Amino acid sequence: MQNTENKYNQGKVLKGINSPADLRKLTTQDLNTLSTELRDYIIQIVSEKGGHFGASLGVVELTIAIHYVFNTPEDQLVWDVGHQAYGHKILTGRKDNFHTNRIYKGLSGFPKRSESVYDTFGVGHSSTSISAALGMSLGAKNPDQQHIAVIGDGAMTAGLAFEGLNHAGVENTNLLVILNDNCMSIDPAVGALKQYLTDISTSKTYNRARNKLWKILGKISKFGPNAQAIAKKIEGAIKTTILGDSNYFESLNFRYFGPIDGHDTEHLVQVLKDLKEIPGPKILHCVTEKGKGYEHAEKGDSTKWHAPGIFNKETGEFAKIKKTVSPPKYQDVFGETIIELAEKNKNIAAVTPAMLSGSSLNKMMKVFPKRTYDVGIAEQHAVTFSAGLATQGIIPFCNIYSTFLQRAYDQVIHDVAIQNLHVVFCLDRGGLVGADGATHHGVFDIAYLRCIPNIIVSAPMNEQNLRDLMFTAQNKNTGPFAIRYPRGKGVQVKWKNSYGEIKIGKSELINKGDDIAILSIGHQGNYVIESQKELKKKGISIEHWNMIFVKPLDEEQLHKIFKKFKKIITIEDGCLQGGFGSSILEFMCDNGYASQVKRLGIEDSFIHHGTQQELYKDCNIDAKSITEAVINLFNDKDISQVG
Amino acid sequence: MQNTENKYNQGKVLKGINSPADLRKLTTQDLNTLSTELRDYIIQIVSEKGGHFGASLGVVELTIAIHYVFNTPEDQLVWDVGHQAYGHKILTGRKDNFHTNRIYKGLSGFPKRSESVYDTFGVGHSSTSISAALGMSLGAKNPDQQHIAVIGDGAMTAGLAFEGLNHAGVENTNLLVILNDNCMSIDPAVGALKQYLTDISTSKTYNRARNKLWKILGKISKFGPNAQAIAKKIEGAIKTTILGDSNYFESLNFRYFGPIDGHDTEHLVQVLKDLKEIPGPKILHCVTEKGKGYEHAEKGDSTKWHAPGIFNKETGEFAKIKKTVSPPKYQDVFGETIIELAEKNKNIAAVTPAMLSGSSLNKMMKVFPKRTYDVGIAEQHAVTFSAGLATQGIIPFCNIYSTFLQRAYDQVIHDVAIQNLHVVFCLDRGGLVGADGATHHGVFDIAYLRCIPNIIVSAPMNEQNLRDLMFTAQNKNTGPFAIRYPRGKGVQVKWKNSYGEIKIGKSELINKGDDIAILSIGHQGNYVIESQKELKKKGISIEHWNMIFVKPLDEEQLHKIFKKFKKIITIEDGCLQGGFGSSILEFMCDNGYASQVKRLGIEDSFIHHGTQQELYKDCNIDAKSITEAVINLFNDKDISQVG
Repeated sequence: MQNTENKYNQGKVLKGINSPADLRKLTTQDLNTLSTELRDYIIQIVSEKGGHFGASLGVVELTIAIHYVFNTPEDQLVWDVGHQAYGHKILTGRKDNFHTNRIYKGLSGFPKRSESVYDTFGVGHSSTSISAALGMSLGAKNPDQQHIAVIGDGAMTAGLAFEGLNHAGVENTNLLVILNDNCMSIDPAVGALKQYLTDISTSKTYNRARNKLWKILGKISKFGPNAQAIAKKIEGAIKTTILGDSNYFESLNFRYFGPIDGHDTEHLVQVLKDLKEIPGPKILHCVTEKGKGYEHAEKGDSTKWHAPGIFNKETGEFAKIKKTVSPPKYQDVFGETIIELAEKNKNIAAVTPAMLSGSSLNKMMKVFPKRTYDVGIAEQHAVTFSAGLATQGIIPFCNIYSTFLQRAYDQVIHDVAIQNLHVVFCLDRGGLVGADGATHHGVFDIAYLRCIPNIIVSAPMNEQNLRDLMFTAQNKNTGPFAIRYPRGKGVQVKWKNSYGEIKIGKSELINKGDDIAILSIGHQGNYVIESQKELKKKGISIEHWNMIFVKPLDEEQLHKIFKKFKKIITIEDGCLQGGFGSSILEFMCDNGYASQVKRLGIEDSFIHHGTQQELYKDCNIDAKSITEAVINLFNDKDISQVG
Repeated sequence: MQNTENKYNQGKVLKGINSPADLRKLTTQDLNTLSTELRDYIIQIVSEKGGHFGASLGVVELTIAIHYVFNTPEDQLVWDVGHQAYGHKILTGRKDNFHTNRIYKGLSGFPKRSESVYDTFGVGHSSTSISAALGMSLGAKNPDQQHIAVIGDGAMTAGLAFEGLNHAGVENTNLLVILNDNCMSIDPAVGALKQYLTDISTSKTYNRARNKLWKILGKISKFGPNAQAIAKKIEGAIKTTILGDSNYFESLNFRYFGPIDGHDTEHLVQVLKDLKEIPGPKILHCVTEKGKGYEHAEKGDSTKWHAPGIFNKETGEFAKIKKTVSPPKYQDVFGETIIELAEKNKNIAAVTPAMLSGSSLNKMMKVFPKRTYDVGIAEQHAVTFSAGLATQGIIPFCNIYSTFLQRAYDQVIHDVAIQNLHVVFCLDRGGLVGADGATHHGVFDIAYLRCIPNIIVSAPMNEQNLRDLMFTAQNKNTGPFAIRYPRGKGVQVKWKNSYGEIKIGKSELINKGDDIAILSIGHQGNYVIESQKELKKKGISIEHWNMIFVKPLDEEQLHKIFKKFKKIITIEDGCLQGGFGSSILEFMCDNGYASQVKRLGIEDSFIHHGTQQELYKDCNIDAKSITEAVINLFNDKDISQVG
């Protein structure tokens, strides 16, 4: 763990907190001071270093209250998604390292078991906390342990969270689910459950009666098991009278408490103490504000303040990005191109599970709100829903980050591919994503998609490729069509050129050469171009093909390549087990060729966080590594050990 | 489509029904006769041919009522899971072919778009119907179309169904979800939602008031939009009074109707007619009985009558299976071995998402009920819950059919493998499963698992291997450990032998030879043994290795094999794209070998239904195909076109 000098001001109370045990020595008055200091500490560091922002500010009081009331790490706390856990990290021994958050070899931006005993469960993808905490609770060796899952309202819309609730509702464990209702996930949360939560939270009748209810419960629950049964009855009666018709959580056999103000530390402490005494599965509904305590975030656009990058903490201004000659992000090329296509092709629709701004579909939402569906964090539904649309002749562009499509793998196979339905999968964030690390890298997609029959799997090397692929994918009914592109920028400053159909399975010659052929897929091909220039100086002649398609492969061209070259390199930013390079080996062996093939890609281990460039270097898929691989292969005289 | 002679008695009304249009000409009295005849027709055929039984008998009246009231196929009907759709198939033009159900080249056991325009969405896996019907409804070109999803209570526990409801609740479509509450899925359904549904269905107060409520609604809803708003209010008020505290579906903004008797055709017809007039998302809760109308199934064990195989329709006796010298099913070896292991290792637990009897974990449930978790149809939760257990030192054996683990792919990667948690995945039904067909074959597992870092991927060739692997998987903390075995029987009649640890990644020599090496993974190795005997007669000497592990590979042995053999065959019952054979190619090329490798396995297309033997033959992975492949390779003089 990197421990560079920490110049940030911790405040007088925070300075003394090296673990939750220190925290528990404070008075409740101190806790208020600590909230202010903790919030300030997060603002100082995130404004300079970047990272997730709004979510962690929103749970400062909740984080303090939980660690104050519960005996962590003996009591086990699971943070859903985990980008809300900055305060948790700072209070659990990682304060002095926190400025290394999300930096190469620094702290992870998410809870991680290997980082701290307080991080009980590694997270990153959403909605796992209830299932994980239930497992911990049923597996616990010590029956007195408490288990707490903190989950946002956005994460509650995922099927996994429901499955966890449905199971927990019939197990008699001391599971406490804290619903952190901050009124949005990344984009404003959608769906019926959200509407329902808002209705509860804003009910004046309910809010008036709330305190009375709590006072009664607080008193009664202290008098042992019988008293608890009585308390439950009273509570039920009052809630029925006040809330009226329905409670989602109670229908799943959870006892529902709240909503309460998630920024009132003293009240939170009192409520959590009371809830410790109430057995069985229960849910505490806390209403919090994303970005709480930082004026610019409170008043500004919550989506922008989710992970704002670097900003001026005094003025709230985002650091300016030089606009002059920079190529666009792939996501923006996608976001603008789909609008152009949708203007001409009335059958195009867009579907995304809560990645509206991340995918740049917010642009399309403005232009074609009725043809753009943000279904919330619900990847499985996004895909099956797209399949349903496709049966009606609609062409859904289903945009999901590569890592999150893992959540809908069965739906891709069972609902789309078996029926050969025309759904276009746009996999943003394919490959190594950078600071989000192991949970978010999209490195398995080529392997897990290309084994599926009927699907087309493609990856553009640049903006032009992406636009051509998008055009091609909607132009005719091709069945399922996946287009996979990376996080971050492309390479073409002038990218708004004309585009059109490309032949499915057709590769593109980038450079003609004689010594070694390099077959690249996707953006990594740009590093081959860089390397090729270097190699030319050294007198090595490279023939570079941008394959564009993993499936179907350009077999016609591959026959020519394998006939011409005895040394071939494949490069991808995906896993080497079963990935693009393996598809080339399959072609070679099935067709009786025996060239020497060196495959570059992600080795068989989980890659941690860092900048994309740092990780490309680590994984030997940057330009320098390509150059080295070529030189090594060029100098290797043995074509094989036996052949 | 096979159309062999149909000897089954159709009854006088059923005889005249060749499509739902014919059905709609009947009087409601005729419908009752039709129910009897349709039920009898299903019993006649399923008792002789096998297939799913209880589910389809349970929805006879519902099927008739839906096609009677709605204008199918213009109105679109989606059957969840689809094994309840036999009546639907018979009424929609497939009556005379129905005796070919689930037979090679005959009708599919599930709805299939390519089979009939009435099959609007291919199903097989559960809980897709709400998402699919919502997509159809939002994509519909004709705004007057109605969309109906029929979903069982068991399927309602899956996260995907929740995600669909949550989205549908905020869309203003005429989606009707019919909850077919038959009180169980394959095994009795579990979870809080189930308890809740039972509570509603058995509430005497509610049932008494039900008819009154319906009468009021029936009258009011006919007076236009304003009247509907009034009806909604009245309905809400009455329900609140009667049901009291909570309604799951109404909290998701569905209008809830029911529960009603799903076997009263006349009432069903009336209710469905009324619901057609009520706009927006709505749910009709029908209580049905699995196996209804067939005394032996009504009174017997519902799990046994789910898909009973062949039986005597008069006596209800199952056809006797010869017990004398038959090897056991792999699932039973698993089911008995886990009990033996759990007796010695107190940390072992078992988890399954609704495959309790299919996995034979019902045996363990009897012996260790507190250590056996059936979490309902909730694959994602099953895996993340197992991960939670594993953090506490519990060793969960998570048993999921291979095809259903696709539902939890992200959880395997994100919650188990990244954290290197010790979860044992037992993938039953790996490979080609037979009569269930394309939706159920477990052919992608090797490819989609072996690209994941940290995981061990293994497949036993026989009972002894399975027991050794299970022992090994629990003996030390190995991190994630997958054991994949097929549907059906093994090969060892005497299988209850001693078992113990095997070295991870160690292969097993089955036969020493000189000409060609065959590397097999899993059960398919037994066909190599068969083939080897044949080849020996022809003077071809085979060296056969049972690899046992796909990951890690036995690299030590592979070096020896590639040094010795220039001709190698790999065989698996999984996909050829990125599967076991590809892992051997990767080893070969990474280590500079250049033998000729012929890979046998499942080609790049979805395989339909038939017996396992019929499909092995079609896919060229039976003994005869292996023999042919060996002879071809043996006679092929060219080691490569260039090398």
